[in-house]
Amino acid sequence: MSAEPAGAPPARGPLAIIAGAGEFPPRLAAVAARRGRSVFVAALEGAADPAAFGPADVQSYRLGQLGRLLAEFRRREVTELVLIGSLPRPSFSALRPEASTLKYLPHFARAFRGGDDHLLRGVVSFFEGQGFTVHGPAEIAPEMTAPIGPLGRKTASPDQQALIARGFELLAALSPFDVGQAAILADHRIIAIEAAEGTDGMIRRVGEMIASGRLRIAKGDGLLVKAPKDGQDLRVDMPAIGPETLRNLAAAGLSGIALRAGRVLVGDAAALGQLADQAGLFVEGVA
Amino acid sequence: MSAEPAGAPPARGPLAIIAGAGEFPPRLAAVAARRGRSVFVAALEGAADPAAFGPADVQSYRLGQLGRLLAEFRRREVTELVLIGSLPRPSFSALRPEASTLKYLPHFARAFRGGDDHLLRGVVSFFEGQGFTVHGPAEIAPEMTAPIGPLGRKTASPDQQALIARGFELLAALSPFDVGQAAILADHRIIAIEAAEGTDGMIRRVGEMIASGRLRIAKGDGLLVKAPKDGQDLRVDMPAIGPETLRNLAAAGLSGIALRAGRVLVGDAAALGQLADQAGLFVEGVA
Repeated sequence: MSAEPAGAPPARGPLAIIAGAGEFPPRLAAVAARRGRSVFVAALEGAADPAAFGPADVQSYRLGQLGRLLAEFRRREVTELVLIGSLPRPSFSALRPEASTLKYLPHFARAFRGGDDHLLRGVVSFFEGQGFTVHGPAEIAPEMTAPIGPLGRKTASPDQQALIARGFELLAALSPFDVGQAAILADHRIIAIEAAEGTDGMIRRVGEMIASGRLRIAKGDGLLVKAPKDGQDLRVDMPAIGPETLRNLAAAGLSGIALRAGRVLVGDAAALGQLADQAGLFVEGVA
Repeated sequence: MSAEPAGAPPARGPLAIIAGAGEFPPRLAAVAARRGRSVFVAALEGAADPAAFGPADVQSYRLGQLGRLLAEFRRREVTELVLIGSLPRPSFSALRPEASTLKYLPHFARAFRGGDDHLLRGVVSFFEGQGFTVHGPAEIAPEMTAPIGPLGRKTASPDQQALIARGFELLAALSPFDVGQAAILADHRIIAIEAAEGTDGMIRRVGEMIASGRLRIAKGDGLLVKAPKDGQDLRVDMPAIGPETLRNLAAAGLSGIALRAGRVLVGDAAALGQLADQAGLFVEGVA
């Protein structure tokens, strides 16, 4: 009998990061590596750039190569994984599944019939059914979420705080409908509600309404609220903002962002705070 | 003592129609006149076309000429009025009030601080405070609202009926927020929610998402639901659709419209049903 030191962690393979587009996947890989965790990145083709992961161990996969991906995970003794980064909602017919992936299709065919929540729940339940533990990015790297309070120097005014409270009430009311993680409010009222167009699409729409004169709001009055739905699976579907969101917001003529603290990904909070200062925006985490 | 015939209606002046843009105001004037009611039309400049009212008695007014309008109503012994037609949300500063209107401004300044509901409630309460009875278009001309059932030959499929039920649930949930009289659903999910962009703006957005390939839905699957908010004052803020709505919907690649019967203005239901048939759309009133 070999002696095993008491309290030692169970032997396990690397943390697998299934990576979509954007800055969050490389940042998560770096945070995990910094904590001494070995990492294997499965970069989704057409979304993640393998070169962005620096020294990490990276391989690229198409969505239709799920069977191959699972085999690689097993070979490396992966037991834990995290899904992070954006991915355009794929069309089922564009998956081009390999032979080793065909048997998993019925699971995903069901998942495709419904809102994004439903699709993502299907993805999580798939990996869980295959014996993996699915972690949320915030479990691995809580510093990537919005902290409580302002990220930069600017803060919301009392009028804006009232608007923010109303915005969060609206998002809560939309929760049961698998839609609407964000809204724009201004001038004591709701200006835009997000659905399939996405947050950036919604911001652009409001910018166009303001620029064309169809929407008249007091300068600097408009703001974005963003929060997960009640019951949203934050392991796989955490709302997120980034530098692009701030740029779009400033270009649209809006004044700031309120986020549910700890429940929205911001990536590098300090860098985002600096960018907010440069753009003259407030970015606040709200408890 | 002069003998007055028992049961005679009280002496009263004409029904005043404060008219915005579109086909509804002339239609309402014609319906009222056909019923033997004398009518006085106050056509709002920049919105209503005075020539559209045929033989009716019409005068044009700017919003800033409210004092003059009230004086004319009193001269004609108007006691009942109806507000109908669309009007861009005016900017308070663009009202250019005449001297006789200045004293009413504080009332409207308060009404302007809030959503459309709040503004419209302010308009109704103003006229009531001046001693007028404000009627809804549906009280004067119920035949101008959506009837129960299809307006044309096409009807919603069972799948679409489920989507319609979900859409009306969504609109009910949005009711407390003074926003969202319409939404577009497709493919088992919510695609768009209306706010400040208006119904036609929302339809256009969905059309662009479909045309650009950013949104993939089964052909002919998408539909519009439209209903008043709970507690919406239907006297002055009844939702409405018209030929333009149908044309936009067809151009966007959507399949039909579901309306709350009796609570959405359609103008000429028979003509709209014919147009729906030509466009291959369903238009249904739902009880």
